This record gives sequence, C-alpha cells and structure tokens, in this order.
Amino acid sequence: MQEVLPILVFQTDFTYKEGAIASMYGVVRSVSRNVEIITATHDLPQYDIWSASYRLMQYVRFWPKGTVFVSVVDPGVGTSRKACVCRTEDGYYIVTPDNGTLTHVAEKHGIAEVREIDETVNRLKATEGTSVFHGRDLFGYCAARLAAGVISYEEVGKSYSPEEIVKLPILRSEVTSECASGIIEIDDTNFGNAWTNISVNDMLDHGFAYGEDVHILLKHKDEIILDQNVRFDRTFGDVAKGDVILYNNELMNVSLAVSQGSFIEKYGCGFGSDYTITIRKADA
Amino acid sequence: MQEVLPILVFQTDFTYKEGAIASMYGVVRSVSRNVEIITATHDLPQYDIWSASYRLMQYVRFWPKGTVFVSVVDPGVGTSRKACVCRTEDGYYIVTPDNGTLTHVAEKHGIAEVREIDETVNRLKATEGTSVFHGRDLFGYCAARLAAGVISYEEVGKSYSPEEIVKLPILRSEVTSECASGIIEIDDTNFGNAWTNISVNDMLDHGFAYGEDVHILLKHKDEIILDQNVRFDRTFGDVAKGDVILYNNELMNVSLAVSQGSFIEKYGCGFGSDYTITIRKADA
Amino acid sequence: MQEVLPILVFQTDFTYKEGAIASMYGVVRSVSRNVEIITATHDLPQYDIWSASYRLMQYVRFWPKGTVFVSVVDPGVGTSRKACVCRTEDGYYIVTPDNGTLTHVAEKHGIAEVREIDETVNRLKATEGTSVFHGRDLFGYCAARLAAGVISYEEVGKSYSPEEIVKLPILRSEVTSECASGIIEIDDTNFGNAWTNISVNDMLDHGFAYGEDVHILLKHKDEIILDQNVRFDRTFGDVAKGDVILYNNELMNVSLAVSQGSFIEKYGCGFGSDYTITIRKADA
Repeated sequence: MQEVLPILVFQTDFTYKEGAIASMYGVVRSVSRNVEIITATHDLPQYDIWSASYRLMQYVRFWPKGTVFVSVVDPGVGTSRKACVCRTEDGYYIVTPDNGTLTHVAEKHGIAEVREIDETVNRLKATEGTSVFHGRDLFGYCAARLAAGVISYEEVGKSYSPEEIVKLPILRSEVTSECASGIIEIDDTNFGNAWTNISVNDMLDHGFAYGEDVHILLKHKDEIILDQNVRFDRTFGDVAKGDVILYNNELMNVSLAVSQGSFIEKYGCGFGSDYTITIRKADA
Repeated sequence: MQEVLPILVFQTDFTYKEGAIASMYGVVRSVSRNVEIITATHDLPQYDIWSASYRLMQYVRFWPKGTVFVSVVDPGVGTSRKACVCRTEDGYYIVTPDNGTLTHVAEKHGIAEVREIDETVNRLKATEGTSVFHGRDLFGYCAARLAAGVISYEEVGKSYSPEEIVKLPILRSEVTSECASGIIEIDDTNFGNAWTNISVNDMLDHGFAYGEDVHILLKHKDEIILDQNVRFDRTFGDVAKGDVILYNNELMNVSLAVSQGSFIEKYGCGFGSDYTITIRKADA
Repeated sequence: MQEVLPILVFQTDFTYKEGAIASMYGVVRSVSRNVEIITATHDLPQYDIWSASYRLMQYVRFWPKGTVFVSVVDPGVGTSRKACVCRTEDGYYIVTPDNGTLTHVAEKHGIAEVREIDETVNRLKATEGTSVFHGRDLFGYCAARLAAGVISYEEVGKSYSPEEIVKLPILRSEVTSECASGIIEIDDTNFGNAWTNISVNDMLDHGFAYGEDVHILLKHKDEIILDQNVRFDRTFGDVAKGDVILYNNELMNVSLAVSQGSFIEKYGCGFGSDYTITIRKADA
C-alpha cells in the first residue's frame, strides 16, 4: 500500500489574474506526482502579513496533523528576511518568509522548531538569477520536497531559535463583569463582519447573556463609529435584516455584523489596534 | 484495489477572501484523506438562493452518478431552517440548507428522498458553541462522512417528505407559432448574457429558424429595455462584435447577448419574474 | 501498480461566477475518475488571446513532460476557427482553439505536431445542438479522453501543418551597449508590474549592471509615460516603498515596478506594441 503523504496547503496574495499559481503548482508536480495540492486562498490582501498570520491561525487547526502549509505574503521577497519552515508543537509545518506570518501560529499552536531554508539545496535549479518569485523557486519547491519525503525536516536547513522568529504585536482583550474591551482584530472581508479579540466565553463567564442587549462603543482612534445598544446573540438570523448584532463568530470571539449586510462597509470600519471596542451591559 | 469513493463538489458564496474555505476543506480532510474535493464555485452572489439552485441544475447532470454536492448559500444559518441531504431520482446527493436551494434540482432531477441532518451525530465535535459556520461544522463535515462511507445515507438523520422541501416559484414559458414568451431566468454573470426560460427546441418546433431575425420585446415591469429586431442564431460569432443576438445557450434555452460585450451591463438587465420577454417572428 | 496518467491543467476566461467550470470539470470526471484536474486560472482577461498565449509560455515549462493543457479563451466559439490539440517539441500537449493562443508556445517550445479535433468522435454526446460551450463539450471532453488514454493522440483527429497555426505578431527587443529597446509585452496584473520583452541577460551582457541607475523613456504611441532615471536591480525591496524600479522578473525579462505599489495603475500603463520602452545607462 502506498504511503499517505502530508497534504500541501497554499495561501498567497497572488490572485489568479496571471500565471503565477500555475508556475508554482507546476514546480510542485515536477517534484512529486503524489502530494495533494490544496488551495487555501490566493486572495489574501496584498502585502498584508497580519492577515496571512491570522488566517493560518483560523484554519490550520482543522487539518490533519503533519499537513504542510505554504504561506507567501512576501513584500520583502529577495531581501534579507529569512525563508523558513517551522514545526508547531502539535505537529504542523509552515513554510513561509519569516516576516511576521508566524505570529498567530506561534501564539495558538506554539513553535517547536524552526529552520532556515538552505537555498543551495532547496531552491529550484536554474532560478538563481531570479529574486522575485520565491513562491515558485523556494517555498513551493522546498515544501514539495518536504511533503514528498525527498528531504527530511532536518534537511530543510539549519535550525534557529523560535525566540528569533519575527512577531507582530498581539493585543489582549479584557473582560470584567462590568465591561469587555478589546479591538477589531480582523474582518471576514466577504460578508463584512468585524471580528474582535474578545472571547465569547469570557463574556458569558462574566454575566453577559445571549438574547440581551449590550451597549457598544466602537472607535477609530478618537472618532466614534458606533455608540448604541445592539442585540448580543448567536447568529445573524436572530435579528431583522439590516440590524446590527454582536454575535459569536466561528473562532468563538464576539463580532459585529449587519444581518445580511456588510458592517465594515456600512460603518467604514477597518481593523487593527486603532479600532477599539468597549461592550457594557445595556442596563448597567 | 481501493474502492472509488464519491466525489465531493462544493459551491458557496464564501469567496476566497479569508480562511473559510480552508477551514471547511480541512474538516473534510480530517474525516477522510481519500474523498476527492472539487470546487464548483465559491463566488455565488451573496445570499442568492435562486442562483445556488439554478447553478446546481446547470451542472449536476454532467457529474458521475453518486457524486455528493455541497451547497452553502445560507442567509438563515443557525436559525430554524432545516439542514438536509437529498437523494435525487437519478442518484445524486445534495447537502444543503433546505431554504429553496433544491428548487431546480427537484424540478429537473426529481427528489427520491430527503433526510434532515442529525446534529447530535453529524456535527463536528466541539463546535456546538458556534452557530454561524454550518459550511464547516455541519454541511462539510456530514458530506465528508457520507462520501467517505463513515455513515450510510440512512445515518444522515430522519427522512421527511420531499413534498415538504422549500421551493421557490418557477415560471413556465409559452411558445406558439406566433410568439414565444417567458422571463429572464438568470444571467451567466461573467460574459453578461441574459438567459431566458424559453426552450430553443420549442421555438424551432414552432417555426422559428436560425439565421432569421426575430422581434424582441424585453421589459422590466412596465419599462421597455429592448424593442427591436435581432438575429436568432447559434452563436455570438454569427453577428458582428457589439451586435445583439438571440442565441441558443448551453442549456438549450434562448438567451440574449452582445457579441464580445455584456448584454446585462449595456442594457441594465437583471433577472427574475419582473424581466419579461416576448419574441415574435420579425416579419409577422 | 496503477499507471500514472498525464495531468490536466485548465486556463480560461470563464471566472467562477456561475456554473461553467463545474460543468466542464464534471464532464472530465465522467470520462475518467483518475485524471488529475488542476486549475491554472479561470481569471484570464476576457477574450484576450494574447494573454492566454503568454501565460502558457510563462508556466508550461514548469510542469512534467506529457502534461495536457486546456486553454479556452475563445471569442470565436462555434465559428469556423479550428479546434486543435498540438504536441510541443518537448512533449507537452495543448488543447485549444487555434486562434493565436499557440503563439508563444510555438516560439518557446516549438510545435512538433498539430491535429484538428474530430467533432464526430471527440465531442460530448448529445451536445450537438449547442454551439457556445466548447470548453465543456469539445475541449474539456477531448482533453479528458486524451489524458485518460481513452484515445491516442492520433485519434484526436487529422493532423495539419504547424505552419498553418494562427500566430499573433511577436516583436523582438534590441540591446546594444548604448541602449536597450523593446515594448511592454504584458503585465502581471495583480501586483501591477509592467513586463518588457527585453532579456535581463542581454542587458547584463552589454554592460548594464545591477545597482546602477538607468534612464527610462516609456511611451504610449507619442505620449510620454515615464522619462526619468530609475534604479536597475534584482528585486522591489532594493528601493524604498513607492519608488520606481527596473527589476528582473520571473521570466528573466526586465520589468517596471513601483515597490509595494502598482506601476500600471500609477502610470496608466497598458501593454502591446504601442507601449515602447528605451533604456539607457544613466550616465551616458
């Protein structure tokens, strides 16, 4: 019986507008016919390392242990930032520029080991003249070799301390029986919901309850975006179309939505540490 | 020899802008390494159950019998609408919210049996706290189990009467030797053609002929969108670039196009029962 | 042991906005459960045969020999243009309308043989009434049969002379020790870089050197788009964010970029023979 190889899962900001994905996947298939190729997404926001990092945290956990993820959001391609493969404490592999993309995976899964890709071995032959397409020449190629068993993890290159991995700052939320406060950490882009960094279980543990109204103060720096009571509940359908709701999202963090609409468009809401949110019980 | 498992084919309105697809496919792979995953589309118009239903009718027939389709356009996620798996009379399976998505499949293929998904068995463990991502936690998970043979069709959950399936109204066209009348039932979005519900064979049977002009009266409610003679023919290339043509589309329904242009953009034409079309022989 | 079948790689301008891709892939799976289906892209610019041709040249080389590519950018679908399968001199197969799509592959790989698809044999049964979806009924179906070994290459249809293949004009660049001149041949669309037809190695051979400034004169017909000194270097990160750079792209042609920005948007730069570029040493 044929050995089951790890799956290769790709995310980039390349889009399908031209031939980049086809080149990258072609290199994988030239290394191995047997490694499964899965597209996580090629529509990440351009150059947005934070999103690349957050999305890995969002979905890595749902894959079988041993899966090899390739993330290429790489504004510094060809410069001195490291190219690496990390192994998480729970047994996943991430192949990526070491530019902050590992921030959330380090936080959520823990990094057991990280190795810098040795370009003298794990770079596609005859591409040394090109500096701008590491997705094809380095990350995709090296990941395919690793997943296909052409090289062992040790043969990726020299290990370095997980402490040295580049990390972006992560802000913590705070929940008391009076008040939950945090930031809009990311959006879900397509449906236009704004995801906070506040755990729904923290809120439920502190006396907030589904089906009740809460008071939201949402600000961008000093500017007030939302200052009103909204329903706190499980899902969009619990309020009328067009109404704002604070709901529990797929990662068990409370989030703001307009039912069957886009909260982020309607309120011009972005994400990051400048978007602060304070939630109080409505009758407090 | 390994048994050949049914294929899993997915359509949603999730897009690839964030990590939803990767989460859903990861759950499938955690259930089974051997079920093939095919992306039909994740770019369906948001919340548009009609389109979800129509697209299934458009492509299900081209797949091998036994294929398992997962459709998630689900504005009512987490509310009381049923989650179901139906079996068509010709042997396909559709996993979907029972919210109208089965309208055209019921019409075209017939529904032999339908079962409500039993969440106590066929929901991804430890996701009970989340109400907003049934694509990942319920539909994708249950479909993977069904396709992989972890559960039988009977183990999906209790059956209910196909008569109870939620259906959207479908309007019939009418063709005589004088006149063909119907509606714009959908568009093909990308190329901008407007697809009617009028069968080309009905027209050919009633004396309409390729290569001749016909007179089109296209209206949105009382407003006239098009009132002119156009060529009735087989394909866009039969008229000059920019000309309007009534052609026979891939489902053997007559449709309106601008050759190498977008009819729906040029004429602001939508779809639905408010968009009525009447076709007469030009010399009548 | 199961024979390893050739891979099927698809590129079209269909997008995923409706059910076309799912129909086409369904036909492939009805022919064979064992042929691997890879999406190169379905987001090619609409009706843009030049881009279809260029993208094949960009990525075909990275795939295993024997791979079968299906390209459907086909504004003349259903008219008299030939439907064909060519075999390149280095052993790839391309299934495509013979409408110019083979221009760059002919140039880069050479065409050993070309055959016109025999519709009486290699067209999906019961689709004869439809003229507008050869991706599904002819190209996809025939390619699946070829890749799955249902038919041999000879059974595609009658061969004709590679000399008769429709080709679009390709312009040559010219490089001297004074000056490199050429055109913007294409863009990379997503990141917004403008790719010339000038080989970086030609420039390096004629005394241009990485790290030095060069003078760019970029014109659209008589209109000057850019007339300034810019850095000539390996990668975007070699200049500050927002600066223009002449860099070596993934195909070893020099290209214009705005670091972490879009050159084509910022300067309204298109591609084609009307977009001429002249590069001189900055101190000349």
